[in-house]
Amino acid sequence: MKILILHGPNLNLLGSREPSVYGTLSLENINLRLQTLAETMGVEIECLQSNHEGVLLDALHGTDAEAIVLNAGAFTHYSYALRDAIAAIKKPVVEVHLSNTAKREAWRHKSVISEVCEGSIFGFGVISYELGLRAAIELAA
Amino acid sequence: MKILILHGPNLNLLGSREPSVYGTLSLENINLRLQTLAETMGVEIECLQSNHEGVLLDALHGTDAEAIVLNAGAFTHYSYALRDAIAAIKKPVVEVHLSNTAKREAWRHKSVISEVCEGSIFGFGVISYELGLRAAIELAA
Amino acid sequence: MKILILHGPNLNLLGSREPSVYGTLSLENINLRLQTLAETMGVEIECLQSNHEGVLLDALHGTDAEAIVLNAGAFTHYSYALRDAIAAIKKPVVEVHLSNTAKREAWRHKSVISEVCEGSIFGFGVISYELGLRAAIELAA
Amino acid sequence: MKILILHGPNLNLLGSREPSVYGTLSLENINLRLQTLAETMGVEIECLQSNHEGVLLDALHGTDAEAIVLNAGAFTHYSYALRDAIAAIKKPVVEVHLSNTAKREAWRHKSVISEVCEGSIFGFGVISYELGLRAAIELAA
Amino acid sequence: MKILILHGPNLNLLGSREPSVYGTLSLENINLRLQTLAETMGVEIECLQSNHEGVLLDALHGTDAEAIVLNAGAFTHYSYALRDAIAAIKKPVVEVHLSNTAKREAWRHKSVISEVCEGSIFGFGVISYELGLRAAIELAA
Amino acid sequence: MKILILHGPNLNLLGSREPSVYGTLSLENINLRLQTLAETMGVEIECLQSNHEGVLLDALHGTDAEAIVLNAGAFTHYSYALRDAIAAIKKPVVEVHLSNTAKREAWRHKSVISEVCEGSIFGFGVISYELGLRAAIELAA
Amino acid sequence: MKILILHGPNLNLLGSREPSVYGTLSLENINLRLQTLAETMGVEIECLQSNHEGVLLDALHGTDAEAIVLNAGAFTHYSYALRDAIAAIKKPVVEVHLSNTAKREAWRHKSVISEVCEGSIFGFGVISYELGLRAAIELAA
Amino acid sequence: MKILILHGPNLNLLGSREPSVYGTLSLENINLRLQTLAETMGVEIECLQSNHEGVLLDALHGTDAEAIVLNAGAFTHYSYALRDAIAAIKKPVVEVHLSNTAKREAWRHKSVISEVCEGSIFGFGVISYELGLRAAIELAA
Amino acid sequence: MKILILHGPNLNLLGSREPSVYGTLSLENINLRLQTLAETMGVEIECLQSNHEGVLLDALHGTDAEAIVLNAGAFTHYSYALRDAIAAIKKPVVEVHLSNTAKREAWRHKSVISEVCEGSIFGFGVISYELGLRAAIELAA
Amino acid sequence: MKILILHGPNLNLLGSREPSVYGTLSLENINLRLQTLAETMGVEIECLQSNHEGVLLDALHGTDAEAIVLNAGAFTHYSYALRDAIAAIKKPVVEVHLSNTAKREAWRHKSVISEVCEGSIFGFGVISYELGLRAAIELAA
Amino acid sequence: MKILILHGPNLNLLGSREPSVYGTLSLENINLRLQTLAETMGVEIECLQSNHEGVLLDALHGTDAEAIVLNAGAFTHYSYALRDAIAAIKKPVVEVHLSNTAKREAWRHKSVISEVCEGSIFGFGVISYELGLRAAIELAA
Amino acid sequence: MKILILHGPNLNLLGSREPSVYGTLSLENINLRLQTLAETMGVEIECLQSNHEGVLLDALHGTDAEAIVLNAGAFTHYSYALRDAIAAIKKPVVEVHLSNTAKREAWRHKSVISEVCEGSIFGFGVISYELGLRAAIELAA
Repeated sequence: MKILILHGPNLNLLGSREPSVYGTLSLENINLRLQTLAETMGVEIECLQSNHEGVLLDALHGTDAEAIVLNAGAFTHYSYALRDAIAAIKKPVVEVHLSNTAKREAWRHKSVISEVCEGSIFGFGVISYELGLRAAIELAA
Repeated sequence: MKILILHGPNLNLLGSREPSVYGTLSLENINLRLQTLAETMGVEIECLQSNHEGVLLDALHGTDAEAIVLNAGAFTHYSYALRDAIAAIKKPVVEVHLSNTAKREAWRHKSVISEVCEGSIFGFGVISYELGLRAAIELAA
Repeated sequence: MKILILHGPNLNLLGSREPSVYGTLSLENINLRLQTLAETMGVEIECLQSNHEGVLLDALHGTDAEAIVLNAGAFTHYSYALRDAIAAIKKPVVEVHLSNTAKREAWRHKSVISEVCEGSIFGFGVISYELGLRAAIELAA
Repeated sequence: MKILILHGPNLNLLGSREPSVYGTLSLENINLRLQTLAETMGVEIECLQSNHEGVLLDALHGTDAEAIVLNAGAFTHYSYALRDAIAAIKKPVVEVHLSNTAKREAWRHKSVISEVCEGSIFGFGVISYELGLRAAIELAA
Repeated sequence: MKILILHGPNLNLLGSREPSVYGTLSLENINLRLQTLAETMGVEIECLQSNHEGVLLDALHGTDAEAIVLNAGAFTHYSYALRDAIAAIKKPVVEVHLSNTAKREAWRHKSVISEVCEGSIFGFGVISYELGLRAAIELAA
Repeated sequence: MKILILHGPNLNLLGSREPSVYGTLSLENINLRLQTLAETMGVEIECLQSNHEGVLLDALHGTDAEAIVLNAGAFTHYSYALRDAIAAIKKPVVEVHLSNTAKREAWRHKSVISEVCEGSIFGFGVISYELGLRAAIELAA
Repeated sequence: MKILILHGPNLNLLGSREPSVYGTLSLENINLRLQTLAETMGVEIECLQSNHEGVLLDALHGTDAEAIVLNAGAFTHYSYALRDAIAAIKKPVVEVHLSNTAKREAWRHKSVISEVCEGSIFGFGVISYELGLRAAIELAA
Repeated sequence: MKILILHGPNLNLLGSREPSVYGTLSLENINLRLQTLAETMGVEIECLQSNHEGVLLDALHGTDAEAIVLNAGAFTHYSYALRDAIAAIKKPVVEVHLSNTAKREAWRHKSVISEVCEGSIFGFGVISYELGLRAAIELAA
Repeated sequence: MKILILHGPNLNLLGSREPSVYGTLSLENINLRLQTLAETMGVEIECLQSNHEGVLLDALHGTDAEAIVLNAGAFTHYSYALRDAIAAIKKPVVEVHLSNTAKREAWRHKSVISEVCEGSIFGFGVISYELGLRAAIELAA
Repeated sequence: MKILILHGPNLNLLGSREPSVYGTLSLENINLRLQTLAETMGVEIECLQSNHEGVLLDALHGTDAEAIVLNAGAFTHYSYALRDAIAAIKKPVVEVHLSNTAKREAWRHKSVISEVCEGSIFGFGVISYELGLRAAIELAA
Repeated sequence: MKILILHGPNLNLLGSREPSVYGTLSLENINLRLQTLAETMGVEIECLQSNHEGVLLDALHGTDAEAIVLNAGAFTHYSYALRDAIAAIKKPVVEVHLSNTAKREAWRHKSVISEVCEGSIFGFGVISYELGLRAAIELAA
Repeated sequence: MKILILHGPNLNLLGSREPSVYGTLSLENINLRLQTLAETMGVEIECLQSNHEGVLLDALHGTDAEAIVLNAGAFTHYSYALRDAIAAIKKPVVEVHLSNTAKREAWRHKSVISEVCEGSIFGFGVISYELGLRAAIELAA
């Protein structure tokens, strides 16, 4: 089983970007922790980050993974193209966020992709990703 | 370590209530699965369900658990008293939901408690609870 | 056939409470009129009033009546827990109101339970209950 | 005593129009059932249907009935002229609907005439009319 | 010079309809007062009332008057067809109302026709019409 | 095959009415162009214009055409009765508009009938009708 | 009989200010035309203009006129203090505007003083004032 | 004279709950200060706290006090049942809050009970209660 | 200690202005009652009323009082300049109102100054001022 | 004459993506049908699909076609950059959609590009494109 | 060339007022810096501050400057009278603000004067004024 | 010191695109004027334009400039990804616009990036950029 880990815009800056909100782990650290968990669970993961909406769409369209863990970053709040891509592919997508968006600006309270994801996990930092990977594995099973 | 599992209104009907939405597991089944996971993780859990808002408040005020996994049911959407209770106690609370509320009626899209919980998990059925228990254990550690 | 007549918060004050809005009949008077009609129609009724939302939920969950006539009082306008309870039990519920809520404050214009009741009757005073009982009998037939 | 039964736009299509919503009874069937009930109750009824708003206004202005049972169809949701006509005549009007409008499109949730009717009955199919006739007789008594 | 006086729905009931709001003058009385003023001013008037939106449109399309005084009644608040008719003919239209709509229900605060009329006069009872006739004469001059 | 061409309120004024918005063709010119196209396509057309909502409803209810091309004029924006009529008959309806309503007043941006039409064509002047006729023929085939 | 003519902010600039909207008459010209009409009608008028809200309030509180014609300028749209002053004095106030505010910016569509004035006249240029003076004389009679 | 002091949900936690918002006095401390003031003023007080909405309703219905000082806590913002109870009993109720709710979350800005209380006092900490007791004594006199 | 009592627009009319809303006491009477209470409490008061927003701002900027009791009248609802003045001076301001604004027009429900005042007191007539003076003395202590 | 056919995000998935909504034709099939029609009409077409907003902008800026048929997919609903590009180039753009967006989610009801396109065609499946090509040819003529 | 520098309400308190928001420069300091820059640029400036809306209107009406730099303070957000004054005079006005209003309370996000100013400069402290002066000089050139 | 000048979508068309709104200068002209000013001020500038949101994000992430002048074009109004990028990098960003967006379509009134920029400059054409460069130099100093 293969799970795609998809990171949206600005997540390449993790660790240096607003650490009080996003923590001090770099994206590489997060991918390593997920790699470790994946090995424990006996699954393969592939990690991709992009600041380009079109690249994320192409990745969703083309992946051979059985399920996707997606942190769409700010695209969460306006990219209906991303939403349509999730609805169009026939694979379970798990929405994850590092921060608890409900505690932040009003525009972060609305996710335009939640409705087409299987489920969502918010607010646990890197643990959001780990729980998301566990969920994706269950859904792909 | 002790984790309180708190179930809100109408969850006593699980299994018979709208199974296409909430699944066919009874509340007892869910509690048993959580009990099994808790033992694996080496923690104690206590499970409580009530249809009475005041009983849930009293439970939050009086619990000796280190963290709480809360499925507030419909109270999620209007019980500011529950919200204030979560904010008042100084313990991490993990919000969980069986269904993906973003796919359902508009009034279910707004949670008045998310802002004061550590994080939230929606849409994975009983797995929402299991992920929530894992999160609570991490937060209480 | 048995019909449950369920009265929500503050309805115990009927007769003394704002008689220009709610009329001068006491709750006991209303129950007696319904009892008379029920006997004429050859059905059994059970009457319950509570100011506690949880008590109303427990009553809906546990009743052995075939149908329910419900005046939810102010819970009509915010108790999504009551709404979920009505949706969860598999029995017809008839919503009734003494006053014509469309003539009153804006917040009374929205019922959060209408959508899950079979139908609704507003504005005829005690006759709302009598019509509601007739409707419940038809629905339970 | 005479009661006017007034049917608004598109109700002439009943029976063939969206039977899953409006049932399979034709308007003639409904009028016959009301005629039967009226005879039982010892009152006279007159039935009128029109797709023309102006015809409904003229009928309300000119009727010699003591009360009116009105299913305004789609005019319910925008005809302030109909609303003003109901307010202008000094006779009780009972609003009825076949379907439970609260379960349908958002624009059907608002009735611009409820405020000037004595009361309203929604969602019981032809029984809505029968209950409405009973209510009108009580109000005209 | 000829001025068309156009009265909308329910205005045929003036005098008997809610006299505390609309006064005790009948429509005939109002037309007579306007006739008197018109003679003083040396102009001809033609008066028409209808409860049918289509009749009012046809009258606007076909009139040979140089200007129109229009009390559109409840059509004021939703008849975009009337609005388009006023915009389509190339004659000045003066909007008048007997009552001060700003003191009444919220839905009466919005006129969908004001934007295409030359100007508007509200709240002076029959004097609104007389001022409107004076304005129409000035505009048609 | 027969197609009904239905024109709503104020469209009888085409050619003289705001030519910068609606063009200089009269309604007769438009009907002639449609007649020419219909002959080319081998279908029969029937054309009807009315300023009376009720007449349009009666026409929709009673037509023997296989499909309808409808320019509802201002009724587009508030006539829920027209909407219900379209939904009630079991024939494809194609919504057309001469102007691009998205470029005009805010209230013209909302069509209450689009949802029950097969599809919509806006903004191409008389060509909107010609494309609409082509679409209707395809849908009726 | 004495009528106070009260002009609000920026009206001292009339004639030079946006003549396409407000016309080419100066405030002095308007006052002269009103003076002429007042003499014809046999009443006394007093004219006051101020850019200071407080001065307008003091004038309303202290006037010995029997009625007031008020063009509140931009204060129309936000000065609740002016509204309270009109409601507090026990004299009829006639609201007038040179332009048809319904044709202009959205914020000009709402008058916070209409509700406490006797009536309102919009859109006839200087004729608005003349009609307003006529109305004030009738109301003070 | 007897005054009922009614404390709503979560107020039992005062002193430990968010002291930066609610101060460091316990509920017992507050009741003692009110007791001292009551003795000075020569009135009797009774103090009750509950986390159960139904208990607060029952207390309002059954009290023999001449007036009530009510801190409804979070129920302030959604309990229309509490609002109806206040309106139903014929005794003056004084609304008090420890914090200045206008400085806090948007949902705390709306009180659904203010409209049926005699008056309201916000933002002075325990002094809000003392001023409220003084007001209640005046109102009950 | 010195307390400034600041009265906003139209409050000079108290006693004659809408006595059913504002009571029959004149502003002089209110100031005398406050003077009496101030003497009892051993503090000095200074009273000022103005219909001019700028005068109120200047008074707040220049006062040597330790605290202010402010009834801002209609400025409560739109004077952001007053709000900024309160925030800018470093002295406690107590907002008072004679009437219960929550019972009145919707625009009176929003105070733009509450957020920067220490606290607010509504609805007790002259007693609102007396309680406000007590609060101001406590805050200035 | 040359017409550019521009397809937005996710349209590369046509045929496999939600066929109940979008039909079973692949994008290649659609392009072939348009090619056939273009040849019949004697015009040249160029077809381009991209999931990248910037690619669509660059295509609009750089094309040598005389007109464009654009299905912007989900960009229809939020890409103001696309809207500005259409407004900036001086060529007619015809908006087309396969589905009737008025029947779908609320966010699909608003097109941010309609205002700057010549006209729009919704809901006819592949026929929308064919009608759009016909319209583009007329506009470019 | 002469430029008017106009400061609105509460700006006389600069330096002592909320220095974390507005900086520690006094108004006199700012005027001196502008004087220095003006001399460098070879233009004359005149500086005026007032807490009175009417004084600002009078200054705009009467100034002989060729352009105006305006910090309207809180009047920015509600003084439509100020807006009308800017539109009425035929001179360029440059809107400046010390703070970045987009980072502050929601009511500060809307400027009612921006639409009639040439342009706006926010958030650079005293540098906003200096840039504003430069812009005014360019516009007046 | 180095300043990055970043131009968003469609700005490559300047000069030919809607010159009445955006002026007749090409982007190259603007960059040259900025280059001239930069040399005068003794700073280095780098200019970049892209129609691709991702390219703008990458540029912000990777730049070695001390400050940025950003005209985000239409991305101003919806690109929360751009907003997050500005917040994530620790460099001052100055928002500039050629046109006064407050005078244009409603959707242009809201900038989603203002809140995270240091300040904003609107409406002065190319001078907006020059003032922005001056501001950036001051902020980077």
